[in-house]
Amino acid sequence: MSLSSIKNVLKAYHRSQQQKALTMSLCFCLLFSCNAISKQENTLPYVDKKTHHIPVFDTFNGKQIKNVNLGWESYGELNADKSNAILITHYFTGNSHAAGKYSSDDAAAGYWDSIIGPGKAIDTNRFFVLSMDSFANLSVHDPMVVTTGPASINPETGKPYGLSFPVITMRDMVNAQKSLLDSLGIDSLYAVAGPSMGSMQAIEWASAYPDKVPRLISVIGSSFSDAWTTAALEQWSIPIRLDPKWNNGDYYGKEGPKAGLTAALMFITQVALTPEYFNNTGKSLNHSPLELAPLQDIHASHKINQWLLERASSRSEKMDANSLLYLVRACQLFMAGQQSSWQDGLRNIKAKTLFLPATQDLLLMPYHAHDTHQQLKTLKKQSELSEIPGALGHLEGVIGIQKHAETIAEFLSN
Amino acid sequence: MSLSSIKNVLKAYHRSQQQKALTMSLCFCLLFSCNAISKQENTLPYVDKKTHHIPVFDTFNGKQIKNVNLGWESYGELNADKSNAILITHYFTGNSHAAGKYSSDDAAAGYWDSIIGPGKAIDTNRFFVLSMDSFANLSVHDPMVVTTGPASINPETGKPYGLSFPVITMRDMVNAQKSLLDSLGIDSLYAVAGPSMGSMQAIEWASAYPDKVPRLISVIGSSFSDAWTTAALEQWSIPIRLDPKWNNGDYYGKEGPKAGLTAALMFITQVALTPEYFNNTGKSLNHSPLELAPLQDIHASHKINQWLLERASSRSEKMDANSLLYLVRACQLFMAGQQSSWQDGLRNIKAKTLFLPATQDLLLMPYHAHDTHQQLKTLKKQSELSEIPGALGHLEGVIGIQKHAETIAEFLSN
Repeated sequence: MSLSSIKNVLKAYHRSQQQKALTMSLCFCLLFSCNAISKQENTLPYVDKKTHHIPVFDTFNGKQIKNVNLGWESYGELNADKSNAILITHYFTGNSHAAGKYSSDDAAAGYWDSIIGPGKAIDTNRFFVLSMDSFANLSVHDPMVVTTGPASINPETGKPYGLSFPVITMRDMVNAQKSLLDSLGIDSLYAVAGPSMGSMQAIEWASAYPDKVPRLISVIGSSFSDAWTTAALEQWSIPIRLDPKWNNGDYYGKEGPKAGLTAALMFITQVALTPEYFNNTGKSLNHSPLELAPLQDIHASHKINQWLLERASSRSEKMDANSLLYLVRACQLFMAGQQSSWQDGLRNIKAKTLFLPATQDLLLMPYHAHDTHQQLKTLKKQSELSEIPGALGHLEGVIGIQKHAETIAEFLSN
Repeated sequence: MSLSSIKNVLKAYHRSQQQKALTMSLCFCLLFSCNAISKQENTLPYVDKKTHHIPVFDTFNGKQIKNVNLGWESYGELNADKSNAILITHYFTGNSHAAGKYSSDDAAAGYWDSIIGPGKAIDTNRFFVLSMDSFANLSVHDPMVVTTGPASINPETGKPYGLSFPVITMRDMVNAQKSLLDSLGIDSLYAVAGPSMGSMQAIEWASAYPDKVPRLISVIGSSFSDAWTTAALEQWSIPIRLDPKWNNGDYYGKEGPKAGLTAALMFITQVALTPEYFNNTGKSLNHSPLELAPLQDIHASHKINQWLLERASSRSEKMDANSLLYLVRACQLFMAGQQSSWQDGLRNIKAKTLFLPATQDLLLMPYHAHDTHQQLKTLKKQSELSEIPGALGHLEGVIGIQKHAETIAEFLSN
């Protein structure tokens, strides 16, 4: 990949050289951690992970889950009248760890640490910020994650649920979060904010409980899963179901579908990034179409594929394949407010809304946010939208969020 | 998907309502065949499929393939001095059938029938147009396809090659075509033209044999496989390798990896189209995120996924999984002219060039063509570029090619 070619890629995306420089530093950040900011003065104190217990949870589709445990954490202090709570809802491969570190050993701080902390856009000197692990959280084997999902023991059988776990929806994630807020005596939020799948939950909050959500920040999100997105998400489930070790979801205590799960993570990683990012990575790997091994051997693979495979394989260690299927399904089932149309779902919303789609997003393309924003305007609701530029594509909503720190601070100021 | 949403999708893509109407008719065309034009006066006579035999073929990577048979067909007549030949090079899932019908029973004419025929952009009253099945052609089980690839019998063992078939490259496809031209006494082409993988072959022709190619038409193509494309292509191989019935490529005479191959075709279909196309399809299927079956059952799936699955499953009947792996690899190995850089490959080219990328292409995004065009201009070569608009994305280069019939006719006129 020559400089001239990179320039043309940039031109094709209408990106300036300035943005490219920023992007390169962000790529570095993505690869080697994002903890630079947390080492500054506005660092959060070490974060405690806690567990919220729900004895019996009624799901949206009419099932019951007993003995639910979901991890959560918070930053800042709840004020006396409990009016300063901001809920952060996490993305597909994420968990409650939105900011700060658990201990000095942590390589990186939480994913939105650049905008959550003392004096930051979501200012923990002013707000009580909290976040919760989802049902069927992907990172079941991360010791800091507490989740109830298909890998959990079904108290009625003493065995893991596997695919007998009920299908869950964004409403179920929202209701679990509401149960936590109720337990803390928080009747109304100051705001709800989240990226990607977290945006779906945030919109669901504002539509399902409009009186509890005066402010909504939807980052790289959508208000429903359209046909394109439903099919695109299915691509992540397919390799898991093809892996013979998946065994129709019954693999706990055995080897498990590591190859299928790794493939799913490879697909997720690519669609969440961009050609520009991959081609910069290719340059650093000295990518060439005519690499000798793949030219000579159909079993061999190009270096860029090896790079992607190794990264995904390493990430898969903490993750559970069945949980990925449940999260895909929850996203596919998303319809704002669980109404008969997304427009009806938006009608319920009372919050003022800030949309932050990523310009180069190939996963949830900016049309989702533009459509939703436009519909809210049509419904005479208060809505604003700014795009997040950059070659990280979808991941700009996670890694690049500080580009809109000021927009967010301003939005939350009143 | 409401009308207002579709409008916004369109807006996000900067497409006009006029283009939308055209797109809807193209979608219809894609679903139900593209033979409307072939029924008009400018229809080709029925086409003969022939076989070109190569006793021993030397591959680019230094191997030999014995007893090569590759199908080919032609339209129009070769003139006396054999100076009017235009070679059409086919796309990934295609074959030599670029135009016309084999018999009155054929549901559809060849894929570029709208621009190849008497009085059409590639005028068979003037030109001798020919096209050849690739090595490792995907549609091994199509009775009209003749190909040598991993599903062929290795004459040295009497058994199918499977993965012992040599890795092939675009240069090998070009050299097989050159062998056919040599056998017909055609020393030089009037032009070479092809879409997608066909564009790779066309560029390879112009770079490998610059004195034989005065005119080059590259449709929805690229001049090399960059890191992004190499990883994106790998997504099509992964489900085949995961399918236990693939059995490391040794499945001939057995059931075969139908599920993995079907998954690959689902991925190919989606990335070759666009959100706009899928969401229009979703509308016709009455897609809803909250469809009852997937809400209640983790084993069930949304209608849009069923639609995609059934279409891919049906297409897979004629196709061979190992061949798909070989074609993916050939594309991943593509570097113009097999030089150390694509810029060096382009330096060889003497042809004047026409690039026709598709504006909404998500598979080989327009930056590929823009980069290559720009580089040729930098090298002071004659190059022009026009984009193909439309919601079919990558497939506009196949289904929507007649939008640029006049551009092509003009380009070929001198």
